[in-house]
Amino acid sequence: MKYAIGVDIGGTGTKLGVVDEKGNVLKHHEFKTTDYKDFPTYVDGLVEAITMLTSSTEGECQGVGIGAPNGNYYSGRIEFAPNLPFGDGAPIVDALKEKLGYNIVCLSNDANAAAIGEKIYGGGRNLNHFILITLGTGLGSGIICDGKIVLGEDGNAGELGHVCAVPNGRICGCGKRGCLEAYASATGIKRTFMEMVAKYNGDSIIANTPWDKLDARVVEDAAKQGDKAAIETYNVTGAILGRCLADFVHFSRPSAIFLFGGPVKSGEMILEPTRIAMEKNLMPVFKGKIRVLASELPLGDAAILGASAMVWDAIAK
Amino acid sequence: MKYAIGVDIGGTGTKLGVVDEKGNVLKHHEFKTTDYKDFPTYVDGLVEAITMLTSSTEGECQGVGIGAPNGNYYSGRIEFAPNLPFGDGAPIVDALKEKLGYNIVCLSNDANAAAIGEKIYGGGRNLNHFILITLGTGLGSGIICDGKIVLGEDGNAGELGHVCAVPNGRICGCGKRGCLEAYASATGIKRTFMEMVAKYNGDSIIANTPWDKLDARVVEDAAKQGDKAAIETYNVTGAILGRCLADFVHFSRPSAIFLFGGPVKSGEMILEPTRIAMEKNLMPVFKGKIRVLASELPLGDAAILGASAMVWDAIAK
Repeated sequence: MKYAIGVDIGGTGTKLGVVDEKGNVLKHHEFKTTDYKDFPTYVDGLVEAITMLTSSTEGECQGVGIGAPNGNYYSGRIEFAPNLPFGDGAPIVDALKEKLGYNIVCLSNDANAAAIGEKIYGGGRNLNHFILITLGTGLGSGIICDGKIVLGEDGNAGELGHVCAVPNGRICGCGKRGCLEAYASATGIKRTFMEMVAKYNGDSIIANTPWDKLDARVVEDAAKQGDKAAIETYNVTGAILGRCLADFVHFSRPSAIFLFGGPVKSGEMILEPTRIAMEKNLMPVFKGKIRVLASELPLGDAAILGASAMVWDAIAK
Repeated sequence: MKYAIGVDIGGTGTKLGVVDEKGNVLKHHEFKTTDYKDFPTYVDGLVEAITMLTSSTEGECQGVGIGAPNGNYYSGRIEFAPNLPFGDGAPIVDALKEKLGYNIVCLSNDANAAAIGEKIYGGGRNLNHFILITLGTGLGSGIICDGKIVLGEDGNAGELGHVCAVPNGRICGCGKRGCLEAYASATGIKRTFMEMVAKYNGDSIIANTPWDKLDARVVEDAAKQGDKAAIETYNVTGAILGRCLADFVHFSRPSAIFLFGGPVKSGEMILEPTRIAMEKNLMPVFKGKIRVLASELPLGDAAILGASAMVWDAIAK
């Protein structure tokens, strides 16, 4: 059996998985990123974890794929990531190639890895043109054109969370205003709900939930119980997201757009208003041709799957 | 000497040129598109014109490139174009291949052809990632990613004139509202100037110019004479265009964006406010890295150059 190792590096934890060609995660392992104080000791820890997995797995390891914040596909380096103790430009691909001896070691940011995961294992298997949008604390994206991830001049393309959704709109964590992720994300849903509480003067079954107890799931539950403010929150979110998806269609004309992440678990509650707004904002030539679908990647393993998918993608090239 | 034939099919006229590898247009020819009542007779006329050019040119013709409204690169067909008497799906590439015997006959829409022209002969010669925006009656665009034109699932990608620049904004010819081309185009400049005349209650040296006598050049001349309303028109145009260019950067991270067309003859009058607005709307990681430049293609020959460039581009692949 052939398999790949997928590694998901986060500020708190590092998750690893042994993944076969069909996207089955055969083994899991994780350790604390915070146990390591710098890049060299972290690499030793990661190599040890990978070796532990490969030495106990029958078959042939094809390589390692890594998803990390600010992971650069071109350079193989993790560029300055505020939540990782690695400094700037940590050369993780070269370090792993040297210590493990594999030819294929790939790095990308989380959202691009997820898009490659969708292409190799998920709903994008037979598609040459699609976009994956991840809705979490923020909004990430990976764009597939002609079967390849769009990386741009220096590997940072696909930052669709920071297109301008509302001119002079909400303050975004990036320092700009009106960014799409300030509206279409778990955080954006929470912010929109607060506006709805104001709009309806507290007429909501969860109006008394304080800011720090509120999240997209609380709003989703209220919406399922028929709460007007919560339902409108999803409609407003979908209206803004869908309008921006239409812009993305005008750019690259994908055949599908996949949505991934916690807020997508609400299913049609977010998908339907998104589709309606997208269709309304498409030029006639595009109408009715682009599907908006929930990602087929399982929420829990998506990061490991996406990372491992880069290995199969590299082999296929 | 090796040369290519570039053909620019318009509703009124068809222009042809003999173009060498450096982008010199060695010969021009044109005839009236309107002299032909249907597609078969038009093809005969076009073949005759091409043969006339090639038989009188020394050297080796490498092929024919065609730019046409709704020209589809994938299918080689001109899809329904309202201003051409060809019906739907006119198979111009197959027709010319059969009648002329060339291996290379390429078709694209005007803006994509112009982008390939910029890549082969112009400012995009050494760039793998750039965007060309054409400002004319409308706004067209051609996007180069990884050295290739972005065509999308069915060849219609790159319709950046119809992204939403202003939610619920101006009515656009496409039937939508707030499209970028309703603001950033020769027509958009004219519309913005009318708003400025209203804003300043007629305080402009060209306030009495009626709608049908007004065009972007009249506004440009007034701005050069220091007219406040005309200057603000260019600033508003650049502000909206630049904000949208920032969105495009977040999508594909080009190294340059070229602007082409009549309004760009005003130079820094449009380029400077566009750059300022783009920079303001970029995420920190992109700031200061993307150039906004005037196209290097000459205005008069750009369509023929773009069309012919597809031939060299096809040879290079």
